[in-house]
Amino acid sequence: MSITYTSIDHVSTYIAQMPMTDINMVEAAVRRQGQLTKPPGSLGRLEEIAIWLAGWQEQEKPEINAPACLIFAGNHGITNKGVSAFPSEVTEQMVLNFQHGGAAINQLCQTAGASLNVFSLSLDKPTADFSEEPAMSIDDTLAAMQIGADAIPDNADLILPGEMGIGNTSSAAALSHLVFGDHAATWTGRGTGLDDERLAHKTAIIKQSVARIGDRSLDAVTMLSELGGRELAAIAGCVLAARLRRIPVLLDGFISTAACLPLWAANEHALDHCQISHYSKEPGHRHVINALGKPAILDLDLRLGEASGAAIALMIVKAALSTHNGMATFAEAGVSDG
Amino acid sequence: MSITYTSIDHVSTYIAQMPMTDINMVEAAVRRQGQLTKPPGSLGRLEEIAIWLAGWQEQEKPEINAPACLIFAGNHGITNKGVSAFPSEVTEQMVLNFQHGGAAINQLCQTAGASLNVFSLSLDKPTADFSEEPAMSIDDTLAAMQIGADAIPDNADLILPGEMGIGNTSSAAALSHLVFGDHAATWTGRGTGLDDERLAHKTAIIKQSVARIGDRSLDAVTMLSELGGRELAAIAGCVLAARLRRIPVLLDGFISTAACLPLWAANEHALDHCQISHYSKEPGHRHVINALGKPAILDLDLRLGEASGAAIALMIVKAALSTHNGMATFAEAGVSDG
Repeated sequence: MSITYTSIDHVSTYIAQMPMTDINMVEAAVRRQGQLTKPPGSLGRLEEIAIWLAGWQEQEKPEINAPACLIFAGNHGITNKGVSAFPSEVTEQMVLNFQHGGAAINQLCQTAGASLNVFSLSLDKPTADFSEEPAMSIDDTLAAMQIGADAIPDNADLILPGEMGIGNTSSAAALSHLVFGDHAATWTGRGTGLDDERLAHKTAIIKQSVARIGDRSLDAVTMLSELGGRELAAIAGCVLAARLRRIPVLLDGFISTAACLPLWAANEHALDHCQISHYSKEPGHRHVINALGKPAILDLDLRLGEASGAAIALMIVKAALSTHNGMATFAEAGVSDG
Repeated sequence: MSITYTSIDHVSTYIAQMPMTDINMVEAAVRRQGQLTKPPGSLGRLEEIAIWLAGWQEQEKPEINAPACLIFAGNHGITNKGVSAFPSEVTEQMVLNFQHGGAAINQLCQTAGASLNVFSLSLDKPTADFSEEPAMSIDDTLAAMQIGADAIPDNADLILPGEMGIGNTSSAAALSHLVFGDHAATWTGRGTGLDDERLAHKTAIIKQSVARIGDRSLDAVTMLSELGGRELAAIAGCVLAARLRRIPVLLDGFISTAACLPLWAANEHALDHCQISHYSKEPGHRHVINALGKPAILDLDLRLGEASGAAIALMIVKAALSTHNGMATFAEAGVSDG
């Protein structure tokens, strides 16, 4: 199917008219779990994941054959305000590292069995400083979202979106603060390593940025244009396109999850096809996860981004499917079922 | 090396004279982590796991090439007291299911890349009802421990011990209560599915069993003979033998962890070569983990046993090693290190 983000209204229509999970296949998968040779419910989260996939793939025994990790990289004008411990040049250096196979996500995708593609989004044109003006135009936002949609390989059956962008925890914190309110400090963390003084400064910048906008009822595209980086808009566009194609998604950490908040703010079911891979050590992520009511799969104190947590969660998904699809039933194995 | 458990004193000597981690290799692995292309500490638990393995394998870049999952199965006289929701016949039925490849652990070992061996321990001779008398003789206990030691393949470089045994959460609860005190209810859970009334009954049986013994300062072998099942003694013997051979271990859930408490009670460093794979939903496990001060790797609401949590944790270990060994350093990749 062709998915094109041509206007704010166009995107809003997509968000309002999303496909939903297939309840019949969810129920079939629940029944199957009850027949497998184990006490009912004893595989916990693995059972939930298999059942969730059954609903989105519309089959009792879902399969993952072509999981696709998609990394979007962008640069941020907000770094001029001194909100990051690393210089902006590192974004491009890390993209080269991805391309040469030396980053964490290269090893993790190989271990977990996912394809990996990296998309550089105008690294030479950082977004504007969103504490003073919108980060980018509506057209630039739609273009970044489109790159996210077009990044999905034709055969992909699970998407692992990720990001690289020095300064982008500020964008994530600002979007979280805009969508959920509370205090700026709730959503603002140390990123790649700020000290106490610079954390306080960053928090003030986030507060100022959201206060500049004022209106919390913006549409998704406008929210992303105000506070997003290009890579966050790409992730939002990717996750929305995946939904329209019924492809489930493993969200990664704080930035990837925050990138999708504008979709959720427009439609509270917009992330039903997503699992959150892990609780990032960046403290805002746990608050976002709690607000979404979507418990994460892993809690490994990761705070790297790059879809690193999603790649690890892919292994858990594979474990879930191997048991769901491969185990014998009580009847098949001749085991008494209590 | 030949490891033989010929007497209580012999085992006690092994426990008192264990090899310890190699601090030099731990430090080398810490240094390597600091040079990899990521913010320091951003891979969280993955970094810790790689460093832990470096110490036990005595090499800066540890490798896992032959992880061995070893399932020990036993039957329990305590089931006569009505402490389990499933009949004892299920132990043997599940052993057949393991042998035919239909159980959860078969699928998980295949997915995670571990070998699997199953050991039936005199299923036709359940242990005695330990609420009234010792579960087994010292000789039977030593023999079960020896089976655990001998089960380790020559080339194994990581051990995933697991268990199957209807009634064995009672054994685990009793050992936990004996070692840590507190109330019997702290350690007693629903196992494979008891209702409230039967849970209260089970708790009373656990209380009575530990009260029968009275002495909390028993040696490890005697503790296991009093309250263990054969499969718990085998796990303790396996974990001790792994330590003597410097092979790291992924403990599984409540029963596997409780089986090792007699080793820990004799030497608080006895489980330093072990990681706890996951927090079981059986509530006693979290209390045991807190008492040991060894946070688990995963929290997936599993309560199956069979080393199922250990097999999943093996995937996390592989992810940890792939990043530790495969990532580029800042110098290699030409990335600014902040």
